[in-house]
Amino acid sequence: MKRRVVIIGGVAGGASTAARLRRLDEEVEIIIVEKGDYISYANCGLPYYIGGVITEREDLLVQTPEGMKAKYNIEVRTGHEALKIDRPKKEVEIEEKKTGRRYRLAYDQLVLAPGALPVRPRLSGIEAPQVFTLRSINDTDRIKNYLHEAKPKSAVVVGAGLIGLEMVENLHRAGLKVSLVEMAGWVLPRNLDFEMAAPVHKHLRQKGIALYFGTSVLALEQRSGQVMVLLENGERLPAEMVILAAGTVPDQRLAMEAGLAIGPTGGIIVNERFQTSDPEIYAVGDAIELKSTLTREPSLVQLAGPANRQGRLAADALAGRVVAYEGALGTAIAKVFDLTVATVGLNTESLRRAGIDFFSSLTHSPDHAAYYPGSTMLSIKLNIAPDGRILGAQAVGYKGVDKRLDLIATVIKLGGKVTDLSQLELAYAPPYSAAKDPVNVAGYVAGNILGGDLEVIHWDELPELDWSRSLLLDVREKSEYEAGHIEGAIHLPLSQLRVRAGELPKDQEIIIYCQIGLRGYVAYRMLKQLGYKVKNLSGGYRTWKAVRDEMAVQRGGEGSERDLREPSSVQAAGVESGVKLFAQQQETAATTEEN
Amino acid sequence: MKRRVVIIGGVAGGASTAARLRRLDEEVEIIIVEKGDYISYANCGLPYYIGGVITEREDLLVQTPEGMKAKYNIEVRTGHEALKIDRPKKEVEIEEKKTGRRYRLAYDQLVLAPGALPVRPRLSGIEAPQVFTLRSINDTDRIKNYLHEAKPKSAVVVGAGLIGLEMVENLHRAGLKVSLVEMAGWVLPRNLDFEMAAPVHKHLRQKGIALYFGTSVLALEQRSGQVMVLLENGERLPAEMVILAAGTVPDQRLAMEAGLAIGPTGGIIVNERFQTSDPEIYAVGDAIELKSTLTREPSLVQLAGPANRQGRLAADALAGRVVAYEGALGTAIAKVFDLTVATVGLNTESLRRAGIDFFSSLTHSPDHAAYYPGSTMLSIKLNIAPDGRILGAQAVGYKGVDKRLDLIATVIKLGGKVTDLSQLELAYAPPYSAAKDPVNVAGYVAGNILGGDLEVIHWDELPELDWSRSLLLDVREKSEYEAGHIEGAIHLPLSQLRVRAGELPKDQEIIIYCQIGLRGYVAYRMLKQLGYKVKNLSGGYRTWKAVRDEMAVQRGGEGSERDLREPSSVQAAGVESGVKLFAQQQETAATTEEN
Repeated sequence: MKRRVVIIGGVAGGASTAARLRRLDEEVEIIIVEKGDYISYANCGLPYYIGGVITEREDLLVQTPEGMKAKYNIEVRTGHEALKIDRPKKEVEIEEKKTGRRYRLAYDQLVLAPGALPVRPRLSGIEAPQVFTLRSINDTDRIKNYLHEAKPKSAVVVGAGLIGLEMVENLHRAGLKVSLVEMAGWVLPRNLDFEMAAPVHKHLRQKGIALYFGTSVLALEQRSGQVMVLLENGERLPAEMVILAAGTVPDQRLAMEAGLAIGPTGGIIVNERFQTSDPEIYAVGDAIELKSTLTREPSLVQLAGPANRQGRLAADALAGRVVAYEGALGTAIAKVFDLTVATVGLNTESLRRAGIDFFSSLTHSPDHAAYYPGSTMLSIKLNIAPDGRILGAQAVGYKGVDKRLDLIATVIKLGGKVTDLSQLELAYAPPYSAAKDPVNVAGYVAGNILGGDLEVIHWDELPELDWSRSLLLDVREKSEYEAGHIEGAIHLPLSQLRVRAGELPKDQEIIIYCQIGLRGYVAYRMLKQLGYKVKNLSGGYRTWKAVRDEMAVQRGGEGSERDLREPSSVQAAGVESGVKLFAQQQETAATTEEN
Repeated sequence: MKRRVVIIGGVAGGASTAARLRRLDEEVEIIIVEKGDYISYANCGLPYYIGGVITEREDLLVQTPEGMKAKYNIEVRTGHEALKIDRPKKEVEIEEKKTGRRYRLAYDQLVLAPGALPVRPRLSGIEAPQVFTLRSINDTDRIKNYLHEAKPKSAVVVGAGLIGLEMVENLHRAGLKVSLVEMAGWVLPRNLDFEMAAPVHKHLRQKGIALYFGTSVLALEQRSGQVMVLLENGERLPAEMVILAAGTVPDQRLAMEAGLAIGPTGGIIVNERFQTSDPEIYAVGDAIELKSTLTREPSLVQLAGPANRQGRLAADALAGRVVAYEGALGTAIAKVFDLTVATVGLNTESLRRAGIDFFSSLTHSPDHAAYYPGSTMLSIKLNIAPDGRILGAQAVGYKGVDKRLDLIATVIKLGGKVTDLSQLELAYAPPYSAAKDPVNVAGYVAGNILGGDLEVIHWDELPELDWSRSLLLDVREKSEYEAGHIEGAIHLPLSQLRVRAGELPKDQEIIIYCQIGLRGYVAYRMLKQLGYKVKNLSGGYRTWKAVRDEMAVQRGGEGSERDLREPSSVQAAGVESGVKLFAQQQETAATTEEN
């Protein structure tokens, strides 16, 4: 009798397991059981098909059951749902959905690749026909058909995670007026920090997206073809369409009912060979719980790249090879209109919650040589352990963001430290980079902090300062200062600083800032050596202003983007520490110029 | 008395040393002596200013002497040339070029950052006013003025290195008809292998560039405003302008006359703290000889990134810090019209010449998910040591080439192996990558070869085969086969292979190929397990055809691009091994279709 491997779920992890296993073993019988109508489709492309960026539906279907049979001799049963695992008998009970026929399928090894399920909060009105989640081809078809037939003019997207943001952009592209509701104070709250999200918010508003932070959906009221979205803060958003993108949870029903061990995250526990608590049952993909590479804590990493790799490695394990999965970092990226946002590892809130000691560094650099046309600024924030290990990175900008984040993720993966970033020897010609790449710059600056050559202060620490003992020093040129500066700052440009340093007090802490942090660093080194007490504002005026403007908008205040939003839709974000400072400053601020 | 550091040369390495040293030490006196009229300018931007991509000359001038004085308290003496180093007295003899005044400048430490000089072969006619080299702002002004005043219509660029290729593109952009002469058989011969260069040649010809390989310039004849470029092979190229881009050599005159140790490459020998054989004299940048990180052999790495980093580290050393420069890999990149070419480490010829054992792997992958618009193929070639260390990488394509090469350079830098490439967890969303990034794919394939799961054969090994004992098997679909295939190949598509495998002989070696190598790999695994002797053609038909077409053009034969060139300008390349196969095949080839 041939050995039989049954794989439940045929999208990313399941299909990868099957194909790799066949390449390693011509003999084993491989059967994929997939409850949906499709296998191995391009999940990550679904929002773009809805938005019309991807025009052909068939382009989403990477592999067909027929192709799997012909090329791989893999039997695929779509529309068959696994109902129950009979572990003692090593059988799966299956229902053919079209006919209702039930049967049992014996296995030698079973692979669970059921994926994840969209969170559907228990809200009244959630069953309304205008309310959608997006996970599968069938979900996509439903949304696409609704757009085509009902021609909705407006949509509310609930949840500003990766899928939420992609849906915002694509529904906007499809011609809808889009609002985004996020319970946290900023987009991608599990990936980004507030100051890195602020430019993303600005960009979204410039594209006409209405943003609602710090509030959640209480109920959905259906009325004459519309849905009224009731928010916790009392606001009511009328919409002809609602996308719930409030996250996903591992689909662990089968595993749990079979008595397999489930972790605290709700994911199926596996060992480094992807075996569950039953050694004949493997699991891969969005349904499993991983040990975080960075914290060693249980975590969920629900992304396509890791799922594919897990599938491949599970096949190696099934073929009897040595496998020791090293875990995943959770490298993620989203296109947000013209911006790119990419992150790896842990953001500040996650680190604080986990009680992990770290420091941060934020740098802005041109994506390629500033003298070559088309150069744009990109921002990198690093969270770094006291021993120099990189715990997290965030990058936001218009160009080359994916490259920089990938480079940092690679250094993390290979166990490098933040000082390694400055040593990286990256390809430089003016169209691609600068002699010091943004990643090198991020490494140099963080290395300076780590090595004691630079002490920085972050925007959210300013409110804690005692201004009777501290002063702000703007070292930019006069024109820059006049175009906008932090209230109360003394102006002394870098070019005059050495000769006029005597004007500065030696008994106060001097908080230096420039536009992005570079001149501030030069000034820091000079003043420090001259005996002054100094700190440099991380990210410079650029970051400070992005935060200040964002808070002004969220508070409905004097921010420069007030005109982009209805006053009634403005929410105060839950960013307490920053608000303190800015509330006071904005009352006295004379100028709110952009620069 | 203050300590005084004198730095000779104020462009990349010299300016970096000076600025960093000041940041570390407010007290030391720093004097830069620069024989040219400018410091710290954007060398890498010069071709783009000539081509009009960079429109403002002042954008090239990153830092001025006045700025260096005001911000860094660094004294800059431009137009002052160091004539001689008096080591016993620790003085430099200097000439102010404008006045001819000579003086001596005492130093405590001296830093040599003189850069490199363009190679000027001893050719008759090389002094003609239409003949230029490009290294400095002054060179740039001369070329720019000549373009403006003489309005030349045609140019010959001699040398297809990085600068040569950039000048080809930029002179073409400036409206000239450009010819490129390269002694080797392909562009970037020290970086690329022939099969990776072939698509670059095709692209250059499509842009209207005439290419002359395997021949060198014998003489330049000046006649009535034109220069006639006489080639070794007897051809004569008339041109109104000639750019010599035949490489650069370290400017080591001062060092050599001062008796400092010079290495076999002609570069100044330094230790890992950048000290020359005189511990009070340091050297950085294009003038120094490095130990190759990969081979530990003496080598020159004349690139801006390493020069900047060396300057920074030399300053650390001068400030008394611990410094241990780890050497450079020579990561390089060039924009060639719409293509990007990037390389790191050693190409095949360099490895063979050095007698280093290695194997190769070539993969083609879409730069981002093929189902998302705008996806293009990019090619990665890896040269790998038997222990899995990556010795060299080459990447060519339209998009995302810099990212992939940088990732590989990073893995090399951190001491990773080729199998690490498959583990990298890179940011994936459809606009940026695929669930398996091209770098992952390159790592998987090379890892398969390394681990014995795949045996490949390269295009240049085909001619060595005994075709009575080998056969070629095309596993692509019928339409692909009919659109063009390798002469003599049997056709059996992957989808039918398992059921029809019995038709194949078990006593012959079967060389499988598909379009890019993926289906070939699946077929390989199947047939191997079924007991056949198999190899997979690395890079598939795509690479084979690029090589075949290129050879046809270079031989003036039946290549599809014949119409793009004058028959008289066609040169046979010196790629012996490949020519053998293709000479025979083209005589009998029925089709030369593109696909």
